[in-house]
Amino acid sequence: MSEIVNVAVDAMGGDNAPDEVVKGAVEAVCEDKRVKVFLVGREDVIRKTLKDYTYDADRLEVVHAPEVIETGEPPVKAILTKKDSSLVKCMNMVKEGSCDALVSAGSTGAVLVGGQVIVGRIKGVERPPLAPIIPNVKGVSLLLDCGANVDAKPSQLLQFAKMGSIYMESVIGVKNPRVGLVNIGVEEEKGNALTKETYPLLKNCPEINFIGNVEARDIPLGGADVLVCEAFSGNIVLKMLEGVSSALIGRIKAGMMGSLRSKIGALLVKPALKSTLKDFSTEEYGGAPLLGLNGLVVKTHGSSKAIEIKHSILQCIAFKEQDISRKIREQIVLED
Amino acid sequence: MSEIVNVAVDAMGGDNAPDEVVKGAVEAVCEDKRVKVFLVGREDVIRKTLKDYTYDADRLEVVHAPEVIETGEPPVKAILTKKDSSLVKCMNMVKEGSCDALVSAGSTGAVLVGGQVIVGRIKGVERPPLAPIIPNVKGVSLLLDCGANVDAKPSQLLQFAKMGSIYMESVIGVKNPRVGLVNIGVEEEKGNALTKETYPLLKNCPEINFIGNVEARDIPLGGADVLVCEAFSGNIVLKMLEGVSSALIGRIKAGMMGSLRSKIGALLVKPALKSTLKDFSTEEYGGAPLLGLNGLVVKTHGSSKAIEIKHSILQCIAFKEQDISRKIREQIVLED
Repeated sequence: MSEIVNVAVDAMGGDNAPDEVVKGAVEAVCEDKRVKVFLVGREDVIRKTLKDYTYDADRLEVVHAPEVIETGEPPVKAILTKKDSSLVKCMNMVKEGSCDALVSAGSTGAVLVGGQVIVGRIKGVERPPLAPIIPNVKGVSLLLDCGANVDAKPSQLLQFAKMGSIYMESVIGVKNPRVGLVNIGVEEEKGNALTKETYPLLKNCPEINFIGNVEARDIPLGGADVLVCEAFSGNIVLKMLEGVSSALIGRIKAGMMGSLRSKIGALLVKPALKSTLKDFSTEEYGGAPLLGLNGLVVKTHGSSKAIEIKHSILQCIAFKEQDISRKIREQIVLED
Repeated sequence: MSEIVNVAVDAMGGDNAPDEVVKGAVEAVCEDKRVKVFLVGREDVIRKTLKDYTYDADRLEVVHAPEVIETGEPPVKAILTKKDSSLVKCMNMVKEGSCDALVSAGSTGAVLVGGQVIVGRIKGVERPPLAPIIPNVKGVSLLLDCGANVDAKPSQLLQFAKMGSIYMESVIGVKNPRVGLVNIGVEEEKGNALTKETYPLLKNCPEINFIGNVEARDIPLGGADVLVCEAFSGNIVLKMLEGVSSALIGRIKAGMMGSLRSKIGALLVKPALKSTLKDFSTEEYGGAPLLGLNGLVVKTHGSSKAIEIKHSILQCIAFKEQDISRKIREQIVLED
């Protein structure tokens, strides 16, 4: 039998903290016996919320942390000065090895900085990419990098491709994942200076299944399993995906309310529409792992509801059982 | 009364040429008396298609061009060697002044190269941006640059902002258009080297109404009227918009076919859905102007149907009547 996976959860992070975070943690613990959650934050507040639920108390502990890092705070300063914040405590639990992973819906900047400064990079990893799992019509893809550090180098994009492949295969379960370089055309010579230099590196890397350039139009169609790009482009891809989906859905819903005929129709299609939109929501697939660290750091949407928190926690099980950190270490060290 | 606007139309360009191109040209001529179209391409083929329509023959001429530039051809070579191609003929008609504008659904590369090499840039314009009109929930925005030349300079982005503002105000009719810099965060200090250098240039430019950075998420919500970015990012924005829309719509339609209940509902909501999707289709708004040239060059989708060709032709009327080339010339020369 596999051993318990210990996950520190930032109970104070995100727009819906602590209620939805606590709820998601309870649901994760109830759904899978392999996981133990440490809810980190203001103990009185967390305990008060926990009262509403029944769960296996052996696998859900509360760890007191009096301070909270707010969304607007400068990340570096917050990480360095708020030692008693829920996020920094979570980071330290991973660093010290009492937890295998942490999940936070808090400030992206603080999670990125804390991951690098406290949890620390695996030796040889140049830049840890933030890698959200995004839906497409066939399933999901891993998009990396979507972090705060832009203007990446070709060697960093090569590492993203390797780490992304490992995660996609071992955690998400996609065999021999297809790696695509996000570009403005499919031909090898297309793109900007960065993609032109990166293309041959990916093409000549034996550890990955590189399928060439992928145009943004093919991303929602499932054109690749692992989408490699620097963070500026990754951010545009991710936010366009979210923005177009929500704009279009809002428009469709409003359009259906325009006449009695379509109102009746809307009632009839509602369940089908709901399930379709659920499949295409970025919130259904757990948070974004920050890869290449000495432990797993998962950033979920600031607006996370319980379901995303739950998925993010459960994602940590495969991460540990599949020993992703060792696999990344081996591949990155191999190349040096 | 305003004088006639002469538009050269590449009858052989695009996936649906010549049928849809000819149809669109006829519709444009029938819809607006201010326009005269020159259908350029293989005369026999065009005349055969034209037989099916009635129109004012004084305002629709056929110009014979025996050669065709295919989509896959290297653009520079095609433009330089195929002097008798429909596209090169159109370009020359604009250059020589017998036409005010040209519309082509042919090879993007060839249109971009031909625009610069044959029609020529307005003095002082560093790079002519390709500027598609994209839908958002409130109306439309102009996205520039989406051309083939990536890695633009800050000074070029400033020119994009000025030319885009002129086009949006004078052709599309948006008063004092809000200019946004496409970026990964709204704060001034966010972004990559290019956006950080461009921000102060836009902020200090008195001719435009700069509203700051715009995140990709806000683009479909109508966050700005003129969206400024370099072409790699612009391409991702445009293709994500198209890709997510088509993926989501396909998914919704398939979802509705899943049960008898939703099939009946689908029938009832169909008209409302159709009109909503029409509003959100990139094909409803005419093609993308290539700005900053000595005449108007409009590139429409390769898959253009008659409606897009028609809109693209009609777009040329305001371009001429509002004397956009003069306005651009004045603003660009002013700064030198």
